[in-house]
Amino acid sequence: MDGLHVTGPQASPHWRISASRTVSYEVRLSTDLLDPSDDTLADAGADPVAPSRRRLLVVDARVNTLFGDRIRDYMDAQAMTYEICVLDADERGKTMDAVFQVVAAMDAFGVSRRREPVLAIGGGVLSDIVGLATSLYRRTTPYVRVPTTLIGMVDAGIGAKTGVNFHQHKNRLGTYHPSAVTLIDATFLRTLPVRHLRNGLAEVLKIALVKDAPLFDVLERHGTRLIAERMQTHDSADRGAATLAVMRHAIHDMLGELQPNLWEHRLDRIADFGHTFSPAIEMHALPDLLHGEAVAVDMALSTELAHHRGLLSAADRDRIHRVITDLGLPTWHPVCSPGLLAEGLADTIRHRDGRQRVPLTVGIGRARFVDDLTLAEIDEALATCQPPGGAPAGRLARMVGA
Amino acid sequence: MDGLHVTGPQASPHWRISASRTVSYEVRLSTDLLDPSDDTLADAGADPVAPSRRRLLVVDARVNTLFGDRIRDYMDAQAMTYEICVLDADERGKTMDAVFQVVAAMDAFGVSRRREPVLAIGGGVLSDIVGLATSLYRRTTPYVRVPTTLIGMVDAGIGAKTGVNFHQHKNRLGTYHPSAVTLIDATFLRTLPVRHLRNGLAEVLKIALVKDAPLFDVLERHGTRLIAERMQTHDSADRGAATLAVMRHAIHDMLGELQPNLWEHRLDRIADFGHTFSPAIEMHALPDLLHGEAVAVDMALSTELAHHRGLLSAADRDRIHRVITDLGLPTWHPVCSPGLLAEGLADTIRHRDGRQRVPLTVGIGRARFVDDLTLAEIDEALATCQPPGGAPAGRLARMVGA
Repeated sequence: MDGLHVTGPQASPHWRISASRTVSYEVRLSTDLLDPSDDTLADAGADPVAPSRRRLLVVDARVNTLFGDRIRDYMDAQAMTYEICVLDADERGKTMDAVFQVVAAMDAFGVSRRREPVLAIGGGVLSDIVGLATSLYRRTTPYVRVPTTLIGMVDAGIGAKTGVNFHQHKNRLGTYHPSAVTLIDATFLRTLPVRHLRNGLAEVLKIALVKDAPLFDVLERHGTRLIAERMQTHDSADRGAATLAVMRHAIHDMLGELQPNLWEHRLDRIADFGHTFSPAIEMHALPDLLHGEAVAVDMALSTELAHHRGLLSAADRDRIHRVITDLGLPTWHPVCSPGLLAEGLADTIRHRDGRQRVPLTVGIGRARFVDDLTLAEIDEALATCQPPGGAPAGRLARMVGA
Repeated sequence: MDGLHVTGPQASPHWRISASRTVSYEVRLSTDLLDPSDDTLADAGADPVAPSRRRLLVVDARVNTLFGDRIRDYMDAQAMTYEICVLDADERGKTMDAVFQVVAAMDAFGVSRRREPVLAIGGGVLSDIVGLATSLYRRTTPYVRVPTTLIGMVDAGIGAKTGVNFHQHKNRLGTYHPSAVTLIDATFLRTLPVRHLRNGLAEVLKIALVKDAPLFDVLERHGTRLIAERMQTHDSADRGAATLAVMRHAIHDMLGELQPNLWEHRLDRIADFGHTFSPAIEMHALPDLLHGEAVAVDMALSTELAHHRGLLSAADRDRIHRVITDLGLPTWHPVCSPGLLAEGLADTIRHRDGRQRVPLTVGIGRARFVDDLTLAEIDEALATCQPPGGAPAGRLARMVGA
């Protein structure tokens, strides 16, 4: 009977429907994607049987200012038929309205259902928005990601999650929809504001702390130089060895976490380190903190919690704290009140289906989960993180202006 | 290396991420779901390990008027902690705003991520909206469907598709997210307006025409009586044999189509019969036509097309036409201009990734796909369907008032 599983009495049958689906996608380190003679970008995600040369591009407004002409020259040289939708993508604009803007552009362009992947060129916010729009459009259309920020290259642009904020809740609405291909070209980092480079290094530090001690060592030794060199391998004193190590390790570590748990059937995720309190911190501090900065504040707090519990030595706690600071990331923010952290934890518990499942570092490069953090413990850790006299105004001012 | 597939040179590696996922859900024919001593509804979709007694219910406004007290009595008797979100769900209100309404109710209730399925009690529109809201909320939360309309029971409420309309495009935004369980209780049909019963029978007729000749025979012989008896088995002259046959066959046929193609990897779907021109017809005729009525108009047209092509005898064409009419469904609507049908077909081609893939009946109970319909052919079929003098005003007026 059609392979359907039917049980129960004749008058009230029960059907059990089961179906399996394999999702497969690619992440590539590339160079010079906008070289007009290189067909990598034009061919990315194309249908091998019936390729189409039509593409809608969604490009971040700042990226369009810097690279818009080169992008157009590239598409012309590759003889593509295309339209460009320019999106002003920042965290405050990460809403369903931005998704609707992309959907309207897809309708206007008349995107075909499977053969014309939308090209998303921009940072993590843009890729989350385009990912959600293409996921919803005709219940799934393909897209290709070209991250232009470090956080896009090592985190937001290589996973399966899409999402937008809703009613001050971070990523409250979203789907799992990886791009067919993510093309990573580090030369985009040359023009990235240094604050956004630090923002991406926060996610690199996160993955290092929970599973990659050698990567932590690279950040500890070369972090400030990587920032000064903008992670450009050609310009580098060590011929890019540190940059390449950071990119390869960070991407590999992250993908290794994602692949076995792409749809988050397991809610105890070590990659959630630094993401327990940070959603509430980030949303309440908007527009003051970037995502990675909020994660850094959470990591500093979580590091204290791990130390207080005897999971982490004072020496390791201090090393971590120093690296956060060396990377130009904050370890505290004025919105961090005991009340906000309690509220943030309560929502995280709902997000993790009723349990805390908080990953904490056990030494550097390993993590374990705890389920029994108390508010008193959190308040104590917060007091340790908080600088004497409250907000370090100079630091915040420098960061925002950087 | 974490099971990740890495290729390419050292300096520019390519990672290939592959992951599989099995989706499994249940459809049950039940009776007397609101009997306070029956725990079927209260337990549906509950986590077997850590069940929660908290539920958010989303209930159609009309269903709430008719059954709201019984629903509350039931939830109280089952000692559930619950809130009810009443939704005025009709095709014109099938928008992202309705999804946001459900999401806001989920936030206010504080739905846990995996253990507290939202109960969707209403018709196909409501279940599409709640399906999309739960699909997006925290990137997937579970829900349970209790269809209260025939179209919900045999079509919209048993598949994987969710969706809302966007900018006059039918179901332009949506996901694949079946409910954990669908509970079908035909006693809800007792209070369903007869027009909505006919609306559901249109989808039953659809599946009969493409794959189930015996089901067509039941509709042909007993269709008008089924409507008169409101498909209530207890009240029936044949003790419900015809009703049960219709329900079992229609559900089984539909699930048999869905299971091997749950995410529509194949775009040639025989269950799309009657859904080639109907999205454009339905959206342009709003609020004049219900979904099944627009499908009936499309089926009448497609039947003519099949006959013109020699796929269907004149006798079978006439039988089909007679059953559509006997079920009180339209075979034409004044919005059906050649221009609208051409526009509708063009969008359907984009939806089917560049090819027509139009299913046509080959005799009764079988279908094949054609890719080469011409506009001239469609105009000719339309002229055959169109009653002399245009709109049969009496019929439409009767239908809308029924």
